[in-house]
Amino acid sequence: MRAAVRILGIDPGLRHTGWGVIEVEGANLAYVASGAIHPPTEGDLALRLRVLHEALAAVMAAHEPDEAAVEETFVNRDPQSALKLGHARGVALVVPALAGVDVAEYSANLVKKTVVGAGHAEKAQIAMMVKVLLPRSAARSADAADALAVAICHAQHRGARAREAMLLRK
Amino acid sequence: MRAAVRILGIDPGLRHTGWGVIEVEGANLAYVASGAIHPPTEGDLALRLRVLHEALAAVMAAHEPDEAAVEETFVNRDPQSALKLGHARGVALVVPALAGVDVAEYSANLVKKTVVGAGHAEKAQIAMMVKVLLPRSAARSADAADALAVAICHAQHRGARAREAMLLRK
Repeated sequence: MRAAVRILGIDPGLRHTGWGVIEVEGANLAYVASGAIHPPTEGDLALRLRVLHEALAAVMAAHEPDEAAVEETFVNRDPQSALKLGHARGVALVVPALAGVDVAEYSANLVKKTVVGAGHAEKAQIAMMVKVLLPRSAARSADAADALAVAICHAQHRGARAREAMLLRK
Repeated sequence: MRAAVRILGIDPGLRHTGWGVIEVEGANLAYVASGAIHPPTEGDLALRLRVLHEALAAVMAAHEPDEAAVEETFVNRDPQSALKLGHARGVALVVPALAGVDVAEYSANLVKKTVVGAGHAEKAQIAMMVKVLLPRSAARSADAADALAVAICHAQHRGARAREAMLLRK
């Protein structure tokens, strides 16, 4: 039995989906693994989504997270771009759910506030703070660092989330 | 061996996803089955998408289509609504692709033009023409009729689509 809780963070996108796995035990965070998935940029949309689905399923199988968290991407673009992003996000949300893993969602602002302390942090600041919080982190891309930031955000907020869910059930 | 080609049409949505299966052999169309999936409207988005994923996978297993087609929903709403629709559409596209089935996409306009003869047909007209083209159709909802219309559209255009793909490969 693992005493630590293993969390998978996902920063979804059709061209680049970052993923990062950490372990949290009390106030301690530990880096487990991270990476980025780059589905083909051409060909049928369904096949591109299949590559993303299978790659995320492989991450789930390799690292067996207890909980997952996906970034609620801020959408200020045209509806057509939002629809495209939604396709990738739908796959990112459903893959952990299919494995029976609870999936939380956090706004990009909350992720930045939690990790950097400010809601409008730059990508470079996030990557730096991820490295400070997870010294053993080997995240080599901004996508992987962003995904680790989502996992860290969930590690900080999962207690409050669990209490809310308990209150709702009462 | 089946001489006829079996087509699954999907009209995706987070609250209502219609599906319809037909068989096409030369110029003949035959109704096989249809229905609608209504994921829970509350609870975690990931769980709602899981219900949709599992229901579509069950349709795939029950009817073993050779090809699939998904409606390219026209998006004129705000980016946030488009993002939500994208989640359901991503799942609708990926489930047949995971089973190795080719997934075509058709605009709502082309579906209407193909089935009714006009790009701005009403839902009732589509349901009526589906009933004319598939006399044995037992589609009981507008969602199922819309999905059968997508399947009929693919039946009419799959030849052209296959020729295009062959030209691209040359």
